[in-house]
Amino acid sequence: MSGLLGSIEGPHDVKRLTVEELPRLAGEIRDLLVDSCARFGGHLGPNLGVVELTIAIHRVFDSPNDPVVWDTGHQSYVHKVLTGRAAGFEALKQEGGLSGYPSQAESEHDFVENSHASTALSYADGLAKAFKLRGEQDRTVVAVIGDGALTGGMAWEALNNIAAAKDLRLVIVVNDNGRSYSPTIGGLASHLSSLRVNRRYEDFLDYVKDKLGNVPVLYDALHGFKKGVKDVLAPQVMFEDLGLKYVGPIDGHDEQAMEAALRKARDFRGPVIVHALTQKGRGYTPAENHDEDQFHSPGAFDRATGAEKPKPRIWTNVFSEELVRLGKEREDLVAITAAMLHPTGLNAFADAYPDRIYDVGIAEQHALTSAAGLALGGMHPVVAVYATFLNRAFDQLLMDVALHRLPVTVVLDRAGVTGDDGASHNGMWDLSILQVVPGLRVAVPRDGDRLTELLREAVQVTDGPTVLRFPKGPVAEPVEPVGKLGEMDLLRTPKGDPDVLLVGVGPMAQVCMDAAVLLDAQGIGATVVDPRWVKPLDEALVLAASAHKLVAVVEDNGRVGAVGDAVARLLRDADVDVPVRTYGIPQEFLDHAKRAAILARIGLTGQDLARQITEAVAKRTSHEVPARH
Amino acid sequence: MSGLLGSIEGPHDVKRLTVEELPRLAGEIRDLLVDSCARFGGHLGPNLGVVELTIAIHRVFDSPNDPVVWDTGHQSYVHKVLTGRAAGFEALKQEGGLSGYPSQAESEHDFVENSHASTALSYADGLAKAFKLRGEQDRTVVAVIGDGALTGGMAWEALNNIAAAKDLRLVIVVNDNGRSYSPTIGGLASHLSSLRVNRRYEDFLDYVKDKLGNVPVLYDALHGFKKGVKDVLAPQVMFEDLGLKYVGPIDGHDEQAMEAALRKARDFRGPVIVHALTQKGRGYTPAENHDEDQFHSPGAFDRATGAEKPKPRIWTNVFSEELVRLGKEREDLVAITAAMLHPTGLNAFADAYPDRIYDVGIAEQHALTSAAGLALGGMHPVVAVYATFLNRAFDQLLMDVALHRLPVTVVLDRAGVTGDDGASHNGMWDLSILQVVPGLRVAVPRDGDRLTELLREAVQVTDGPTVLRFPKGPVAEPVEPVGKLGEMDLLRTPKGDPDVLLVGVGPMAQVCMDAAVLLDAQGIGATVVDPRWVKPLDEALVLAASAHKLVAVVEDNGRVGAVGDAVARLLRDADVDVPVRTYGIPQEFLDHAKRAAILARIGLTGQDLARQITEAVAKRTSHEVPARH
Repeated sequence: MSGLLGSIEGPHDVKRLTVEELPRLAGEIRDLLVDSCARFGGHLGPNLGVVELTIAIHRVFDSPNDPVVWDTGHQSYVHKVLTGRAAGFEALKQEGGLSGYPSQAESEHDFVENSHASTALSYADGLAKAFKLRGEQDRTVVAVIGDGALTGGMAWEALNNIAAAKDLRLVIVVNDNGRSYSPTIGGLASHLSSLRVNRRYEDFLDYVKDKLGNVPVLYDALHGFKKGVKDVLAPQVMFEDLGLKYVGPIDGHDEQAMEAALRKARDFRGPVIVHALTQKGRGYTPAENHDEDQFHSPGAFDRATGAEKPKPRIWTNVFSEELVRLGKEREDLVAITAAMLHPTGLNAFADAYPDRIYDVGIAEQHALTSAAGLALGGMHPVVAVYATFLNRAFDQLLMDVALHRLPVTVVLDRAGVTGDDGASHNGMWDLSILQVVPGLRVAVPRDGDRLTELLREAVQVTDGPTVLRFPKGPVAEPVEPVGKLGEMDLLRTPKGDPDVLLVGVGPMAQVCMDAAVLLDAQGIGATVVDPRWVKPLDEALVLAASAHKLVAVVEDNGRVGAVGDAVARLLRDADVDVPVRTYGIPQEFLDHAKRAAILARIGLTGQDLARQITEAVAKRTSHEVPARH
Repeated sequence: MSGLLGSIEGPHDVKRLTVEELPRLAGEIRDLLVDSCARFGGHLGPNLGVVELTIAIHRVFDSPNDPVVWDTGHQSYVHKVLTGRAAGFEALKQEGGLSGYPSQAESEHDFVENSHASTALSYADGLAKAFKLRGEQDRTVVAVIGDGALTGGMAWEALNNIAAAKDLRLVIVVNDNGRSYSPTIGGLASHLSSLRVNRRYEDFLDYVKDKLGNVPVLYDALHGFKKGVKDVLAPQVMFEDLGLKYVGPIDGHDEQAMEAALRKARDFRGPVIVHALTQKGRGYTPAENHDEDQFHSPGAFDRATGAEKPKPRIWTNVFSEELVRLGKEREDLVAITAAMLHPTGLNAFADAYPDRIYDVGIAEQHALTSAAGLALGGMHPVVAVYATFLNRAFDQLLMDVALHRLPVTVVLDRAGVTGDDGASHNGMWDLSILQVVPGLRVAVPRDGDRLTELLREAVQVTDGPTVLRFPKGPVAEPVEPVGKLGEMDLLRTPKGDPDVLLVGVGPMAQVCMDAAVLLDAQGIGATVVDPRWVKPLDEALVLAASAHKLVAVVEDNGRVGAVGDAVARLLRDADVDVPVRTYGIPQEFLDHAKRAAILARIGLTGQDLARQITEAVAKRTSHEVPARH
């Protein structure tokens, strides 16, 4: 690593630089980020926006004695550079390389690995309480949270508590770029936005700089300095009326102003909000000019032009297009997203039917319960979220939607192994926790044709909720059925006697087809079915199972409590004791790597599956064949 | 039903009464509520506080054309009385009788049955959007939410969205009594409380009445009428800075003032907050004077004195006392509750160690993630919540606590069938969804001695989270082990050959013991074990199962994905194909009734179990015995 970056082994080196050297450091960091993300893809836009802010944090605070908690995690690249990990950007997000999120294994400067939004203030509250209880009075906790993440309810819960704890050493940096994934929505956003466009904001910054010697002001709710100015300009909501001290707004790209604000906040020795205004994509023209999301998280791209490589057709595209068709046929269809309009493909529906789309912010709970309200009022909502984020709204799906048997369709994108975004992005939980929801139906398409077919079936259900889940990445090639077993697709019959019934859940049907060929070649007759709807399971499965010596269920979900367990229960409850073996993701937090690499590592390939099933059959045939009826 | 109540068949009859008759109506309602709750128990305090408020709603709005959504549901008794269900209070919460919560089956005036807090605004947002889309422009949605429920993040998510939807016909009544279960906490509460104690509030009410002819004022964020007064008095937080119109504060026991405010709000034809100040327990002296919670939800009591019947020692007491002992031994133990200090028994810990208790409000998400922060900072948090409410923080337990392998102990009270509070209070989900959490350990005590023992073991775990769950009601009599199988307690060996292995989860161990006696009497040798820790399961279970012809798992949880399924998977993964049968709660939303009545109805008694197992054995013995190794 050449230049100033070559000398940065940790925050102490950042502190040693002269003020004059800092712009050069910022420039080198931006170069490194753009280079690395152009090669590997990554969260470029958010990190370009926090370069100066992060430098200021590491010059003012003493990490890790002062823990820095990064909300949502993907805005921690600059923090990684400044804590001695610049070289790691040579293999960003690659297997064995630098994680795209904070990682305790990488550095003592990383505390929180989870990438789900709006959590940082709660962690920080807990950390600050612990330091107080343990008498570690020299430690200040720094939490950095975006304006988008403030739309999440957890952030409100935390602020409400932090406001009541006057003696916690806690600095909350609000990184306000007016955009989380897409423009931040809601009343809070309007309020913040009115500050930004208001000419008086510029005046205010000038006022601070000129009259107050660049030292920001610390406000109080009712007794603040310069109350007249503050009343018009400061985002009081959630902040001052709660009794929280507030410094800002600060130009987040003015490193010296940020340092001054952070010093002021640190020395207050109580909870303080520092409100920084930043620009997503700052310093890289293609990102600054990118309308959709300022290169929030592009794949690999051409550094000179910013052009991304052409992308194959993905599952999301199929969903996006079919929902637009359905929206034309069905005026009662409405769509809801939680700050994920483009990533879930709902932008096409929004363009076609602007009155019937709701982006609720990073607020999955409200997404589900407002969907319940819409359904109570006679509409059919389609809620599209990433699979891993549905966990945020499990209670709402169960108690607000399912308890009332409401027709809400939840579409889970990025289900199963997603890979390079790390443990908290894998959508490996939904097929398990959804099993417990009474009256819920769950469909898993194996290819694009089945996605359109099952989406149509899902929105036709009127007496309860439906879920449709599909993975990240290129849509699978169609696998045509050779027949039906009940409502299940029969995909293949064995050449010889039926020995093993392979139940392939969604895209795992193709893996089962691959395994079946290998099994047949070894004289093990393999049938393959795709249940299409995995909850409730088709009763025809009981009869089919009874005609085989072993049932193998294969799914792209955590093994525990998912479809495999459901098949086993279905058979037990029917007093059919055919042995069942279940194959899925081991129930652990997976390290980041490409999806294909992970599937190979955990044995979810045709070859691995054939081998494991052969072993299971061999063990069985060394015993008696179990009874069936 | 005599008196005015005798003439109330629905809201139209409420509208017909003269203003002079309304205080008499309010008095009759209070009499009815006190009588009924004295006999059956019930949510007396909250409902005594909303008598006038509810009368006003039904005089101003036109239910069910204008839907009324009651947050948390338990404040809907008066609404039930006014919608023709006064007679039902003769059997409040009894099997087949009136539910303690809104119920679609009871009345077209009831929309939302779920009792989990902070949801009403999201439902209302959805309903109002649906009416707008469908062109049903004469319908206004009314949502009633307590100040305590505003501490829940969902409420913030909803307000943020509602503020951005200027054209929704939506009236939000904030029922502010300063207490949810116990005094409402946090910055919001301090702010509201400062209004209440402020002399200027009284002046303000007088001002409104005298100068404005009892017509409340509709405020706007920056251009409000009488801004000077408003700035000091109105709870701007979450309300006006978001751009929401606001009326208040209103004396919630002044029925005419409430009517005037609600009319004003209704006629605005956009989202409006009506802020009503009420007194919990109003009009019944023992409730008004009750320090702990104003008779939030007492059991049966003596009407004259308010004295509750003496209560038996419950599971909560055992936990409460043991945690105080542990807190003395371990200075790193801290306790967290979500507005449930007394119901979870943490009040004793709070009294003993006031620096180490955190009541975070109705904010389960923040409870778990601030616990993660405390654990990161070196403490061992014990988070005590009702089992059903953990669903609100599933993502936080998974991603914030378990992903970081943090030593947090979650104690789930009211686990399993709770009964008379209806479907959304039963704690029948936790043993299923917790199975998927990597590294989590789960303990289920069968009696009070095991509760103390397992709680001690749980707080000694340092490399990941632990959960302890126990039911509502009187603590079970001790069942002493006759031996150990690994870490499991062996409770009983059969008289003859071992045929059936009964795995009793927690208190179901006693049910298994009862069944075992009956089975032995029929010549079916029954062994009983209690695993104590049900996740991970003890490997000794594989060997024990192999020595029997059938394994039966019995648990007080939904059957799907719970311990029974985990036992079956453990055996399958070990290639042990001994048949397994699982007994638990059917996977459906249960109607309200007493716990014992429900357990009998769903077959979780010794007798029923013995019968079912006998049948299963009979079916098996008509076939070959399966192989084992």
